[in-house]
Amino acid sequence: MATYQHILLAIDTSEQHPQIYDKAASLAKQNQATLSICHLVENYLAPDLAYEGINNVTIEMQEDLLNSAKLQIKTLATDLSISEEQQWIEFGNPRYDVVRLADEHQVDLIVMGSHGRHGLQLLLGSTANAVLHHAKCDVLAVRLND
Amino acid sequence: MATYQHILLAIDTSEQHPQIYDKAASLAKQNQATLSICHLVENYLAPDLAYEGINNVTIEMQEDLLNSAKLQIKTLATDLSISEEQQWIEFGNPRYDVVRLADEHQVDLIVMGSHGRHGLQLLLGSTANAVLHHAKCDVLAVRLND
Repeated sequence: MATYQHILLAIDTSEQHPQIYDKAASLAKQNQATLSICHLVENYLAPDLAYEGINNVTIEMQEDLLNSAKLQIKTLATDLSISEEQQWIEFGNPRYDVVRLADEHQVDLIVMGSHGRHGLQLLLGSTANAVLHHAKCDVLAVRLND
Repeated sequence: MATYQHILLAIDTSEQHPQIYDKAASLAKQNQATLSICHLVENYLAPDLAYEGINNVTIEMQEDLLNSAKLQIKTLATDLSISEEQQWIEFGNPRYDVVRLADEHQVDLIVMGSHGRHGLQLLLGSTANAVLHHAKCDVLAVRLND
């Protein structure tokens, strides 16, 4: 019995965590589900009134960041047999845009890493935390070793 | 390929949510994993210095609560083919004791419901949130309709 039809592997950082990828791939296989991958690149060009004037990030630097992320994710996606249409690498805020992408593509399970940080990080809300609270679908938080 | 060996279905409330039970059971079947179930009954007899003197809960009332929870979980566990040894119904705080039970029994996936509440609930930390942040294993938050 398939529990999930469309699984989204949300890659949060440039760190490599094969245990998350393997779990997402296994769950997709067990459920014969579509597996997609997303990675949000923070847009440092977005206006920040508090720091206006000291933003030295150029459009070229931003494009380089995006292209570098695309290359990195492409390699991973190929290993996981994820087709190009299911690779979503864009500028955005991981806290909100993972949930938006999941909504837009009728994802029913988001798989992401969770560091289990405490204190201030917990209070302010980590990405995993924000996704857990805002997602309209199930969320699997894969525990990473801190 | 089995992703999980021991799945713990953490029942948080007396509300019935068949979609969580079905998902936990499906994942256990897909992975040929042991499925356990836990439910923590809040211990209102625990001393609370701020409210000392107005605690009218008796030992008998507490025992009644525990026995009622045991009966309720037993019926559910039977439906899910969970043996008596894998049913853990105890006094405790769901925010901490779900994680403790998971540790003690080498659980590698906790399945629980998540309401996705916002505001104060998010700041104070819901049970799913606390478990997500403290668990040493993976956590699957099954989205419930609010």
